[in-house]
Amino acid sequence: MLQMETDLVVKPRDVMPQGASTLPAAFYTDETYFQREMERLYARMWVCVGRTEQVEKPGRFIVRELLGESIIVTSNAAGKVNAFYNVCRHRGTKLCTEREGSFSGSIQCPYHAWTYDLDGRLIGAPHMEEVPHFAKGDFPLNRVHADLWDGHIFINLSPDPSPLRQQLAGLPEKFVPWNMQDLRLGHRIVYDVKANWKLIIQNYNECLHCPNLHPALNQLSHYLSGENEPLQATYMGGRMDLRPGVETLSMDGRCSRGFLPGLSEQDVRRVYYYAIFPNMLLSLHPDYMLVHTLWPQSAGRTINVCEWHFHPKELAELEFDPMDAVSFWDMTNRQDWHVCELSQEGIKSRAYRPGPYSNREDLLYAFDRMIVGVHGADVR
Amino acid sequence: MLQMETDLVVKPRDVMPQGASTLPAAFYTDETYFQREMERLYARMWVCVGRTEQVEKPGRFIVRELLGESIIVTSNAAGKVNAFYNVCRHRGTKLCTEREGSFSGSIQCPYHAWTYDLDGRLIGAPHMEEVPHFAKGDFPLNRVHADLWDGHIFINLSPDPSPLRQQLAGLPEKFVPWNMQDLRLGHRIVYDVKANWKLIIQNYNECLHCPNLHPALNQLSHYLSGENEPLQATYMGGRMDLRPGVETLSMDGRCSRGFLPGLSEQDVRRVYYYAIFPNMLLSLHPDYMLVHTLWPQSAGRTINVCEWHFHPKELAELEFDPMDAVSFWDMTNRQDWHVCELSQEGIKSRAYRPGPYSNREDLLYAFDRMIVGVHGADVR
Amino acid sequence: MLQMETDLVVKPRDVMPQGASTLPAAFYTDETYFQREMERLYARMWVCVGRTEQVEKPGRFIVRELLGESIIVTSNAAGKVNAFYNVCRHRGTKLCTEREGSFSGSIQCPYHAWTYDLDGRLIGAPHMEEVPHFAKGDFPLNRVHADLWDGHIFINLSPDPSPLRQQLAGLPEKFVPWNMQDLRLGHRIVYDVKANWKLIIQNYNECLHCPNLHPALNQLSHYLSGENEPLQATYMGGRMDLRPGVETLSMDGRCSRGFLPGLSEQDVRRVYYYAIFPNMLLSLHPDYMLVHTLWPQSAGRTINVCEWHFHPKELAELEFDPMDAVSFWDMTNRQDWHVCELSQEGIKSRAYRPGPYSNREDLLYAFDRMIVGVHGADVR
Repeated sequence: MLQMETDLVVKPRDVMPQGASTLPAAFYTDETYFQREMERLYARMWVCVGRTEQVEKPGRFIVRELLGESIIVTSNAAGKVNAFYNVCRHRGTKLCTEREGSFSGSIQCPYHAWTYDLDGRLIGAPHMEEVPHFAKGDFPLNRVHADLWDGHIFINLSPDPSPLRQQLAGLPEKFVPWNMQDLRLGHRIVYDVKANWKLIIQNYNECLHCPNLHPALNQLSHYLSGENEPLQATYMGGRMDLRPGVETLSMDGRCSRGFLPGLSEQDVRRVYYYAIFPNMLLSLHPDYMLVHTLWPQSAGRTINVCEWHFHPKELAELEFDPMDAVSFWDMTNRQDWHVCELSQEGIKSRAYRPGPYSNREDLLYAFDRMIVGVHGADVR
Repeated sequence: MLQMETDLVVKPRDVMPQGASTLPAAFYTDETYFQREMERLYARMWVCVGRTEQVEKPGRFIVRELLGESIIVTSNAAGKVNAFYNVCRHRGTKLCTEREGSFSGSIQCPYHAWTYDLDGRLIGAPHMEEVPHFAKGDFPLNRVHADLWDGHIFINLSPDPSPLRQQLAGLPEKFVPWNMQDLRLGHRIVYDVKANWKLIIQNYNECLHCPNLHPALNQLSHYLSGENEPLQATYMGGRMDLRPGVETLSMDGRCSRGFLPGLSEQDVRRVYYYAIFPNMLLSLHPDYMLVHTLWPQSAGRTINVCEWHFHPKELAELEFDPMDAVSFWDMTNRQDWHVCELSQEGIKSRAYRPGPYSNREDLLYAFDRMIVGVHGADVR
Repeated sequence: MLQMETDLVVKPRDVMPQGASTLPAAFYTDETYFQREMERLYARMWVCVGRTEQVEKPGRFIVRELLGESIIVTSNAAGKVNAFYNVCRHRGTKLCTEREGSFSGSIQCPYHAWTYDLDGRLIGAPHMEEVPHFAKGDFPLNRVHADLWDGHIFINLSPDPSPLRQQLAGLPEKFVPWNMQDLRLGHRIVYDVKANWKLIIQNYNECLHCPNLHPALNQLSHYLSGENEPLQATYMGGRMDLRPGVETLSMDGRCSRGFLPGLSEQDVRRVYYYAIFPNMLLSLHPDYMLVHTLWPQSAGRTINVCEWHFHPKELAELEFDPMDAVSFWDMTNRQDWHVCELSQEGIKSRAYRPGPYSNREDLLYAFDRMIVGVHGADVR
């Protein structure tokens, strides 16, 4: 089935500015840099935390750890998605210890039974009525902004964030045909990667490493195929083409299920790879959606949650089996995280100096410039 | 057996000062605050480290870890209890690696065999006689002050401490009837609690959380019963009443052994709870003494040693079984440590703000004021 | 076989200067002191990293971790030993993850396939030819200086080190008779010692502790026998004598193999112990060479690699068995590391004060003075 293409069109890349090279080590190893990126990117931008299917029944919740904060994401009786800090307003007790579950109409603190409704209003506080001037209205749960895009839930720790739409810019229109809100989870793998979060994004945004590191991937999709969009303020990405005869990215290149409805003939021959800053990697295949979300833990460690989403019609099939796609990407993921970890280790060395980028690493260079801007004058 | 009381007398509590609320997060999470409390409270006050029964034979010893220091507590031939830093005066070698045991008349360093008697005097130092001016008398073990109260051993790391009696104030007279020095260990459980030591003391000093967290305890002793003493400089506490028909705090409320001799009719209907700063929680039941000692490890971690002590006459009984009391408090302890750990986690959040105290948390508010005084001008 | 000697000649030691005592705690516990010693001793001096037999075939390599750096040691086609930082010049990726192995003629980065020859020259860099001004000659592997002494490999992290010969001073001439380059590894044990590296060197350079800690060793070689050389700038050591009837240091004092060829009658009655700063302990026995190399990890932790080397003629014997020597020193090593760890623990105490040295600890006092000089004015 795999045929060598005879007509690969390689679009030439722009030549790098002279001296274009990787970032100094501190960007990857210094906890001060890490904290700055957390505060200026992760605490100010919209962060992808999950899918609406996870909270679609009232009171269903998920708990997420972000920047050391525990955040409850749930929905009220009207289906509105709310997010709250997981902290009681009485004595600061963590309210909820499960990673996911259902509230039966209210959220109760296990310590002194302070009770909140699903919109965060304090509705019970035993014996506080004996305290003059105490008013329940003064002690709602601390709210975190939450918003949705096509089935993806985003939260924003900023007290006054700009709209999610602004961060997503042209992406919602671009990806309308995939109808992402219809898709449902088929498989999830959580990776613990001993590398800086930016190394994972950089790894995701070039395929120069594919012939050497991912021979299987390179057999299905030529590393010089496709085209990148120029870097945007809040995302970057591009597409790669499937080789002739290849139907999707799977262990054997065959597609064991139908393509997503609504895709054009062109789109079913491509895989789209978009890094949506700061934490989402969205990879749209002809027949499934792959979503990585990054959860930075320290300068040198990132939890990486990888999910495979499919069309519910396919999920409902008796013989549905996601493993062709899961195995392919699990293998490829592990190859990637391995070199990210090797880079993290090498960059720590006193011998490390920024190295030269090739023209094939154009998005990385642009991303680095953005990151340098985030640090601004704080970089000596 | 359990009857609902018909005549519970609830003594009203004073109304909290307006705005009375919990402490800022730094008091629980900041290692600088923790170190300050260690130096100003734990290194200056008398700390409960064990029971005289543990060292009652000459040369018997226990080793305790306090503020990162290893301390040997032992007794000499005359029965005097001594405490020493576990450090050889030659090259600083730790002398004793066991947690408890017996010295055969002297303490010998395993490295070069420097040897000390049970009062800490250097009595052997091979080849040091070749060194002019060397005098054994100049190199005794470094002594730690030690003193006793009714069977409890206390040490004080201060070079010149005020007397233990002063710290205990009115407690020795108050608890004469319990004859604590007669009691003997029946059971010990060591808990590793991921919470600040003050959260454990605060948890101990209010029962507002009992109906929600400890339904079994609340069945035996109503959470609104009893009365607190006003906070003292060095301790705080109060009593709670057993419900009618309840004999002691045990799994079924029955007492499977005799009451402690010497207790009044009133005292056998009560449980006394006293937090003796900085590290002892003394809970006197009609038939047993429960002692918690706290061993702070960091801002967010405390080793908590819980011991059940009984009258030797009961311990000598063939059918003696402490498990009715042990199981009850082990269950209750675990409930308490769990919410202490949840508080520790929640207080770390950027969303945490001091929350309002109810009138039922009066001792906590007073304790907090004492703690604020300890930090003094060092709190910005 | 073991006889009590009748004619032990104990050479008197010089009397210590008045007040000669151990170093303040910070030298053993403070990470700032540790880092200073790493930068001024370990990063400037020649450090023993292994044996030429480990890289004697071209492309054979070992990887060593020193000061947080990963260093590749290998040999080129001409047999020259090279050392390189284990860091790709492209994006900083660690090149080599094995601890030892063979390169097949070149060193290739697993990420983007940059390739170096065995002298560190960049010979392949895919797609970099598209980048103007890029020249492979500008990006060789970062070299680490390497040199040899009688079969031992040393590296030096300094960019411009003084010669290894200068550091070794009179040792090469002194130890010519042992023909160390001929010896081959018979056994290796790696110890993880929770003690400062200097405590291990100090432990190695006095035998005052032997009667108490090593009764078996003291039975074979009297702790007061032998003689020390005065401390040199870069090493210190001395010899001890075997007791009459004892053939070597082994479990029973017998030697189950021939003495090393070339040793004098005098040398086969002695064991030489030399600490070659900063990380090599060389112990020459009549029939084997014991080498410890120290790998400091932090102020309180040192990896200690212990190797037993024998004459190849003996290793080739069908009945060759190193375990008489291995067991003896493994037992003795473990006794030593135990007291080193106890010293590390005790020295941390607030009660620790420098203690008095005996005349038998003369090398330690001299070593301490050298260490104080290394810290210079940085010690307050």
